[in-house]
Amino acid sequence: MSYFREVINFMEEYIPGEQPEEEGYIKLNTNENPYPPSPLVEEKIKEALSEGRISLYPPPLGGKLREKAQEVYGLPRDWIAVGNGSDELLNLLFRLFLGKGDRVAYPFPTYTLYRTLAFLQEAEREEIPFPPDFSLPDSFLGCSAKLKVVSNPNSPTGTFLSLSQIEKLLSLSSCPVIVDEAYVDFAPYSVFSLLQDFPNLIIVRTLSKSFSLAGLRVGLLFASPDIVRGILKIKDSYNVGILPQVGGAAALEDIEYMKKNVEKIKSTREWFSEEMRQLGFLVYPSQANFIMVKKERRDLKFLYEELKRRKILIRYFPEWPDSLRITIGKEKEMKILLAAIQEIIEGVNV
Amino acid sequence: MSYFREVINFMEEYIPGEQPEEEGYIKLNTNENPYPPSPLVEEKIKEALSEGRISLYPPPLGGKLREKAQEVYGLPRDWIAVGNGSDELLNLLFRLFLGKGDRVAYPFPTYTLYRTLAFLQEAEREEIPFPPDFSLPDSFLGCSAKLKVVSNPNSPTGTFLSLSQIEKLLSLSSCPVIVDEAYVDFAPYSVFSLLQDFPNLIIVRTLSKSFSLAGLRVGLLFASPDIVRGILKIKDSYNVGILPQVGGAAALEDIEYMKKNVEKIKSTREWFSEEMRQLGFLVYPSQANFIMVKKERRDLKFLYEELKRRKILIRYFPEWPDSLRITIGKEKEMKILLAAIQEIIEGVNV
Repeated sequence: MSYFREVINFMEEYIPGEQPEEEGYIKLNTNENPYPPSPLVEEKIKEALSEGRISLYPPPLGGKLREKAQEVYGLPRDWIAVGNGSDELLNLLFRLFLGKGDRVAYPFPTYTLYRTLAFLQEAEREEIPFPPDFSLPDSFLGCSAKLKVVSNPNSPTGTFLSLSQIEKLLSLSSCPVIVDEAYVDFAPYSVFSLLQDFPNLIIVRTLSKSFSLAGLRVGLLFASPDIVRGILKIKDSYNVGILPQVGGAAALEDIEYMKKNVEKIKSTREWFSEEMRQLGFLVYPSQANFIMVKKERRDLKFLYEELKRRKILIRYFPEWPDSLRITIGKEKEMKILLAAIQEIIEGVNV
Repeated sequence: MSYFREVINFMEEYIPGEQPEEEGYIKLNTNENPYPPSPLVEEKIKEALSEGRISLYPPPLGGKLREKAQEVYGLPRDWIAVGNGSDELLNLLFRLFLGKGDRVAYPFPTYTLYRTLAFLQEAEREEIPFPPDFSLPDSFLGCSAKLKVVSNPNSPTGTFLSLSQIEKLLSLSSCPVIVDEAYVDFAPYSVFSLLQDFPNLIIVRTLSKSFSLAGLRVGLLFASPDIVRGILKIKDSYNVGILPQVGGAAALEDIEYMKKNVEKIKSTREWFSEEMRQLGFLVYPSQANFIMVKKERRDLKFLYEELKRRKILIRYFPEWPDSLRITIGKEKEMKILLAAIQEIIEGVNV
């Protein structure tokens, strides 16, 4: 007999990429940034420690982090909420909008956490396949749902939707629409400019990728004040500790530093994508800090496994066995990876 | 029109105690520890920063923090989960067990977050009044519910239930029972010894109080492996950042340091309780790091407000206007508070 809600027993849990405790891996499986965060982050966290701030509860609404976000993104404070990573913000949004039997729609394949969060709310999922060009499906644009979600750039494909497509989606939807912009700093533009015109738009961001702070856990949410108020009402009072608040604010203070790292990654991405195409892989056009490569009708698990044996981690999703997702690391790391892939597939008919 | 689930619009949100951004307050309102955490915490966090660990995702299950908890509390690892403060663990537990219409029971008054969490799950609440001696009500022991919760020591009263009472509760309950031991290090004993015999027992702890780490956000959960598996299944993958993991592990490594602070607080608590009794207040016997004082049929809001004007913060709950909750600070702070209270109530007929 289980004490759990029935849905928990049969729900599909989200399986994150491996985080090996052992050292020495080239880690290209969970879209971390190979460059360190701004030195200001370490400095400000050390300062907060010396001031004894970890003894006291942190500001419930995010204190300086929220203030800094206000300044950097040019929005009033009541349009901003902070979270324990963007995963927490997504979790809170699903909880805010979806009751049992309510419908959530998203194009697929995408971040599989959405599926887990829908399960937890006992919501109905409408997973609408992307067309081959990864534009928004018409049946998604027009469908009625309690909540819609798009990841842009999309994970795991790295593909990117234009501003006009998102605008069309917002116009045609009478429900809230989450645009998960976890990877947007690697893309040409954000949908930020649509916030003022569409009160149903919710943008979710993270400092884990472009700001190199996956271990700190800082997410940002931008939406109209009504929606932000809902999030503040249901979140844990102290959902973001003082060190992520202080460190996150420091990172936002040094946007130029982040942008330099992003430029390096984008240039490595373009070079590496081309190399993979030369090796005969289909490479989706990526606007993120990763690429997805594909060999039609082949199971690429052997490649993932052989690379792992050589202490290079990339991401294999059993759901999409003909594809692999590869995080863009430093150029040097990508050269090692490329040589390894060449060696492995040489003579193997893939 | 609201996009929210209907329940969100009328739910009672949890209101945390004030966290003034302004400095200079004697802060006795949210049960923080007036003494700093072990120096090892700062040292280990600085080390993790220097090693660049904030760039990478943290171990999803808690890494060294979970290992250290295993060692300190003498339980196998699969009996332990870590959380972003004990609030997150309580939140996850309510989500794990309670669907719409399911019943959760707890004696009252207690930590009002339970009420908020029940609302969020659309669960039925059975709030059973404590008898005057604050033992467990018979109607609570025997009731059938999907989940039962007790806070021990209880907040806001500080009162403490005996081991045999909890044992009786566990025997009589066919549902999971959460014992929220946030304040247990200030009490004579934990219900830890009952874990092996009662698979329905779940103990929740925090490093916010006795370990002086409210700003870091670290909670611990101890329960049978089935329940722990459920929590791991529904929690965010990276719910605890690398700095709380490292800092929390360091705190657990220096238990003696924590115990010394706890002894100081307990001795201040006994002295201060007696002084308040001398001033004519009813003082509940407290086994926590705070006391609740009461004047029957009086509204003590004026006292709270006048103290706040003097930059001393204590806790006034509009729900219990004849009572005030006072965190035990340093002896020096408590002397200032005592003098202020004496001065304020002199000549006022309370």
